[in-house]
Amino acid sequence: MNDHTFLGKSITPLHASEKATGQAVYAGDLRLADMLTGKFCRSPYAHARILHIDTSRAEKLPGVKAVVTSKDAPGQRIGRWVWDRPVLAEDKVRHTGEAVAAVAAVDEDTAEEAASVIRVEYEELPVVANALEALKPLAPVIHEDLGSYQSSHPEHNGSGNVLHRVHIVAGDAEKALAAADVVHHESYSTPRVHQGFTQPHQVVASVDLSGKVTVWDSTKAPFVIRAALAQVLGLPLARVRVIATRVGGDFGGKGTVNIEPACVLLAMKSGCPVKMALDFREELIATFIRTSSYIDLTSGARRDGTLVAVKAKVIFDIGAYNDGFTGSADGYSLVQGPYAIPNVDIEASAVYSNSTPTGNCRAPRAPQQCFAAESHMDGLARKLGMDPLELRLKNVLKGGERLPTGGFVGRTGIQQTMQAARDFLAKKEEKRPGEGWGVASTWWSVHRVGGEGSPSTAWLKLNEDGTANLFTGCTEQGGGQHDILVQIVAETVGLPPEAVTVVASDTDTTPYEQGTGGSRTTYRVGTSVRLAAEDARQQLVAMAANKLKVNPDNLRLCDGKVFVEGTPGKEVTIAALCAEAITSPRGPVVGIGEELREARLGQSREDKDVLDGLQTGTHVVKVAVDRETGKVRVLKYFASHDVGFVLNPRNVEGQIDGGVVQGVGFGLTEGLVTENAETINASLRDYRMPRAGDAPAAIDKSIIETPSKYGPFGARGVGEPPTVPVAAAINNAVYDAVGVRLTSVPLDPAKIVAALKQKK
Amino acid sequence: MNDHTFLGKSITPLHASEKATGQAVYAGDLRLADMLTGKFCRSPYAHARILHIDTSRAEKLPGVKAVVTSKDAPGQRIGRWVWDRPVLAEDKVRHTGEAVAAVAAVDEDTAEEAASVIRVEYEELPVVANALEALKPLAPVIHEDLGSYQSSHPEHNGSGNVLHRVHIVAGDAEKALAAADVVHHESYSTPRVHQGFTQPHQVVASVDLSGKVTVWDSTKAPFVIRAALAQVLGLPLARVRVIATRVGGDFGGKGTVNIEPACVLLAMKSGCPVKMALDFREELIATFIRTSSYIDLTSGARRDGTLVAVKAKVIFDIGAYNDGFTGSADGYSLVQGPYAIPNVDIEASAVYSNSTPTGNCRAPRAPQQCFAAESHMDGLARKLGMDPLELRLKNVLKGGERLPTGGFVGRTGIQQTMQAARDFLAKKEEKRPGEGWGVASTWWSVHRVGGEGSPSTAWLKLNEDGTANLFTGCTEQGGGQHDILVQIVAETVGLPPEAVTVVASDTDTTPYEQGTGGSRTTYRVGTSVRLAAEDARQQLVAMAANKLKVNPDNLRLCDGKVFVEGTPGKEVTIAALCAEAITSPRGPVVGIGEELREARLGQSREDKDVLDGLQTGTHVVKVAVDRETGKVRVLKYFASHDVGFVLNPRNVEGQIDGGVVQGVGFGLTEGLVTENAETINASLRDYRMPRAGDAPAAIDKSIIETPSKYGPFGARGVGEPPTVPVAAAINNAVYDAVGVRLTSVPLDPAKIVAALKQKK
Repeated sequence: MNDHTFLGKSITPLHASEKATGQAVYAGDLRLADMLTGKFCRSPYAHARILHIDTSRAEKLPGVKAVVTSKDAPGQRIGRWVWDRPVLAEDKVRHTGEAVAAVAAVDEDTAEEAASVIRVEYEELPVVANALEALKPLAPVIHEDLGSYQSSHPEHNGSGNVLHRVHIVAGDAEKALAAADVVHHESYSTPRVHQGFTQPHQVVASVDLSGKVTVWDSTKAPFVIRAALAQVLGLPLARVRVIATRVGGDFGGKGTVNIEPACVLLAMKSGCPVKMALDFREELIATFIRTSSYIDLTSGARRDGTLVAVKAKVIFDIGAYNDGFTGSADGYSLVQGPYAIPNVDIEASAVYSNSTPTGNCRAPRAPQQCFAAESHMDGLARKLGMDPLELRLKNVLKGGERLPTGGFVGRTGIQQTMQAARDFLAKKEEKRPGEGWGVASTWWSVHRVGGEGSPSTAWLKLNEDGTANLFTGCTEQGGGQHDILVQIVAETVGLPPEAVTVVASDTDTTPYEQGTGGSRTTYRVGTSVRLAAEDARQQLVAMAANKLKVNPDNLRLCDGKVFVEGTPGKEVTIAALCAEAITSPRGPVVGIGEELREARLGQSREDKDVLDGLQTGTHVVKVAVDRETGKVRVLKYFASHDVGFVLNPRNVEGQIDGGVVQGVGFGLTEGLVTENAETINASLRDYRMPRAGDAPAAIDKSIIETPSKYGPFGARGVGEPPTVPVAAAINNAVYDAVGVRLTSVPLDPAKIVAALKQKK
Repeated sequence: MNDHTFLGKSITPLHASEKATGQAVYAGDLRLADMLTGKFCRSPYAHARILHIDTSRAEKLPGVKAVVTSKDAPGQRIGRWVWDRPVLAEDKVRHTGEAVAAVAAVDEDTAEEAASVIRVEYEELPVVANALEALKPLAPVIHEDLGSYQSSHPEHNGSGNVLHRVHIVAGDAEKALAAADVVHHESYSTPRVHQGFTQPHQVVASVDLSGKVTVWDSTKAPFVIRAALAQVLGLPLARVRVIATRVGGDFGGKGTVNIEPACVLLAMKSGCPVKMALDFREELIATFIRTSSYIDLTSGARRDGTLVAVKAKVIFDIGAYNDGFTGSADGYSLVQGPYAIPNVDIEASAVYSNSTPTGNCRAPRAPQQCFAAESHMDGLARKLGMDPLELRLKNVLKGGERLPTGGFVGRTGIQQTMQAARDFLAKKEEKRPGEGWGVASTWWSVHRVGGEGSPSTAWLKLNEDGTANLFTGCTEQGGGQHDILVQIVAETVGLPPEAVTVVASDTDTTPYEQGTGGSRTTYRVGTSVRLAAEDARQQLVAMAANKLKVNPDNLRLCDGKVFVEGTPGKEVTIAALCAEAITSPRGPVVGIGEELREARLGQSREDKDVLDGLQTGTHVVKVAVDRETGKVRVLKYFASHDVGFVLNPRNVEGQIDGGVVQGVGFGLTEGLVTENAETINASLRDYRMPRAGDAPAAIDKSIIETPSKYGPFGARGVGEPPTVPVAAAINNAVYDAVGVRLTSVPLDPAKIVAALKQKK
């Protein structure tokens, strides 16, 4: 496939053996001397004023070492982008399960007992069950001081219970719809779902004599946690150290501050290290899960299938607190699907309610909007009497288009993913009664060349035997990210992967990194690592050229050697160069890589607004629907993704496999069920994640490699998109199978039976 | 004294509180899950062939998890510069107490029992008690394969039991002595002494599933240990991590590999972490202590005191193994003292014997040679009828002289230290009977501009709030080194010292550093830190100039701000610049400092051979000698040192206080006593380190600041020299008090009584 030595190959995963044998150390595995266990006291009410908290009984309990409430961090707020929540509830509680106090005791039983004897006097307030209720004119206001949270981000221009409103406009959608040959309208909704990682949030906090705070954390974004802790504790960043231990899955749920501040406060107050770990009930009611949504969609097309307009109203129910949900317009343009549409009118808002808080979950906002957009395309195709895939191919973005949000579509392989789906479908066998095929496409546009957020940085230290230590703030949360980074170093510097050690995930010892998320690792972190390795490579080349008395342009690095191309035997080992460097005035070889610094080189103004690393895909699914029970079974699955360049086939396949199964859960089984804002299925038994039997037996794949301009070796990444189109594809297949179209996930058997009954 | 903000001041020591409260974590404090205790089985013979080792009884003992012998590392040798010793004795033992096997067991008692039941069959060999015996023509050869150890270092040109011989010649000493007005001859000797640190060698080794070795170590040179371990274990450096935990004193004794390989072998074999810690008997018989010496000295002077020649024969008894003792000539030129002498003939050799191995100890080789040289100067002055200090002042190096070893003396303040001593003595009170004054000077020349060994490197990472993490491989072993490095950063970048966190002493996470020793920290590490900070400073200045639209030359950094000199209010905080950097294309601010790269800038060929950072000093002591008992009491002490620039007064004073007390031990009480190469005082009770009552009540100081050219802010360092002249000064004071001159330390009461008796 390529002429690389270590790229495009599946190397032995760095963390596989320690995980397989149980020797990997997660935050929950840590045992420090005199370590206490911390537990939360949580609110039984969804919305209530706190009149009084009496911690005296808890404090008197033998074995209890510290109790903290909002009095220990008065007025402090935490969050990401929007700092809207207290460390512990202060004046009121805004959702059932909100933490009101925390205790640290010598063992878990004592801590639990102590938490249970804290007496909180509440005054119940009217509950705002969901975003639709919250938007009613006389709805109670959940955040009285919304303005102050929003002030630092002008795009958060909401009011009342609306955190932000976004209006994306291009052309005149109203007029175009009126003139369209065919108009299709439908309303969709999706529930809250948990990220589904297996390791719950776990934190150990310790404070040394100098007051320096060290936190071992299940986070995938230690620098984000450090920033939040420093702010809430009033400490300089140099006095807070966050170490991300091994992470047992994340999917967006472990990138922002959560239980850390309370844990640190307990450690400060008790003078002992404290461990806190959530159980899965807490995970489901009190962490930051996938936002529920209400999406109203109208589109218009000409008779030949050319899309002329889309009009959408998108409401995201962000629950009691918002975590990492920005008002950026890019995230809402996903509702138009990956299609060129001249007239666009999207009104989107993020709305508070007294429900479980929400935040980032693999491709935040995308599965919800894709479920709507791609179910909608299928419905439109049926109305037009067209093949749904042909309708998509007719309208698909081909690159170069200007989006209503202002960006330009870079080079993209989405058309090829659709063609791959067409090829797959061309060979499809006849469907039997109750069986159907469905298609859905996705696009994910996180990488504007000009860049939002933080650039990634990496350092590469070469040891005196030519082996290397790669420094990155990037945390491996199970996706094999470190494997890829090591491969990039190995390829660039000409070393075997075993010769590279990764120093990562520690705010004290690694360069700044905003976190492993947003499908940014390969594209952005990978670029910084490539640049660090390239910097080191150039130093080695200069030294070797000097030593061998040759033109540096003729030198190549491979197998731990620098050699002269075409002159066998004229070579020097990297080890020899590094050993010499370390005792010579030049000093040891250290490479520095900063991504955006390089990305900007030679880049025009237009380029800056280009979505260079667009990640796209098209899925095909075959399902069988049992008309009696309503049960949907996934029979076949095909996924085609444009990843730009395959750095590591196993990792790409793993992301697709995992994403599809997660999407099956979103499509068929998962979803928090609430009654008046109280979650009634807050256990792993009742909250039904897909099990082995629910997953497709195999997932056929077609990997497209349309190189991005700035990703390492053209890579785009593939961490998030595979989960996005699954629910829509299944929904479209259900329609194909039994002729009913649901407009909400999960595609619950009962809903299907009801729809079939109604259709009859 | 100066216009600096944070330099020249004693900041709160970084490690003081954790050490004072016992919370500092030393290697011996570590407890890892399933950790075993390791113990050595040691030879009872000083010289014997190993016929057979039977470990079966030890292996069968319940609780024993691993036993290792040389079979686990066959043919492997360890050491520094000269790799002359096996991990565990292989074919023979060369000193009493040499480790023959090691065991790991579930507890210390079991490990000790197991070590005691290992049966070793020896064939005794004739013992070579000391270097003088070793030089006899028919002496048994201790290292049969000396040649192979020497091959990598051609200056190790010895044969038989001689590791290396050095001959330093200038002019014609023989002829000049024949023509001299006064010739003085005397022979001196000094015993082996231990470094005297309070924490013995402690190591914990752990091997993970991937085979990566992690060692927590009492070392002050983790990169040196890593290199040795990688070599002996056949691992790449990236697979070995050495972390220097807190070090409880070092004084040169913890800079090279010692018990680490055996500990790692036990961890590998048992599959569990293993801790090994020496007791003080082992410290005294089986680590690398100060070399004993025999020095024969003849000097000639003109009637007016002008030195015309020195002829010396120096024999260092390095014991069974050599550790870090190079054949560099610079180290032997110390025997001529800090004087300009036209005719020099120094013959020096390092000779093996069947005694405790030796290695580095604060100013290796210097106290021995200084005791000889400066006792000798006193004797010569008496012969000339001159004041000893005036004789020194007449001949002292003034800078610019070419030494017989080829280097040039850089700018030096030694003359000023002698003048300070003269000023101190001018005010001296009358001495009473049995009291006397003594003077001695020292020079220590470790810093040739051209540099031997490795340059230091440092990185400085600025966090997004403007605080900083300083990365250095330099280990703090109690001397306050990190305080100074933090001060240099604070001064250069304009931050308070509290804003700087030190990341240090870990081969994985810090840049290469050869180790804390050779008085190199302030001068060399300090320079690398200054350069890293300067690099960061320049980046901040460029950013601020761009932001404030001013000429960068007008910008100054202080109090966490960059401001325009002379334009109040025109400023930007470093925090704001760093926050912007981290989200802007330039990326976070990281400074890189490599010392020698800079040191070479603008340097001429002559400059390269200049001893730029010469550290010098002159001591004055008043003693009282009890003629009945021979007991010597130190009544007053004065020390003047040229440190170039005082970065931290407390640290400078601490080094002088500690050095003088250590020198009092060398002069009056310490020394291993052997009978036929067996140490008979191998306990802290019998090996008499000075106690509080032996130390001078106070040490008057005069600090001279003659700036070096390349040290940070002109600093030279002061870690080693204060211990060097103490024994000679006391010896000269004893002569002044009672008219007898001893030629060996310690100045034992019995020896003084005997000398007084003989004089009568």
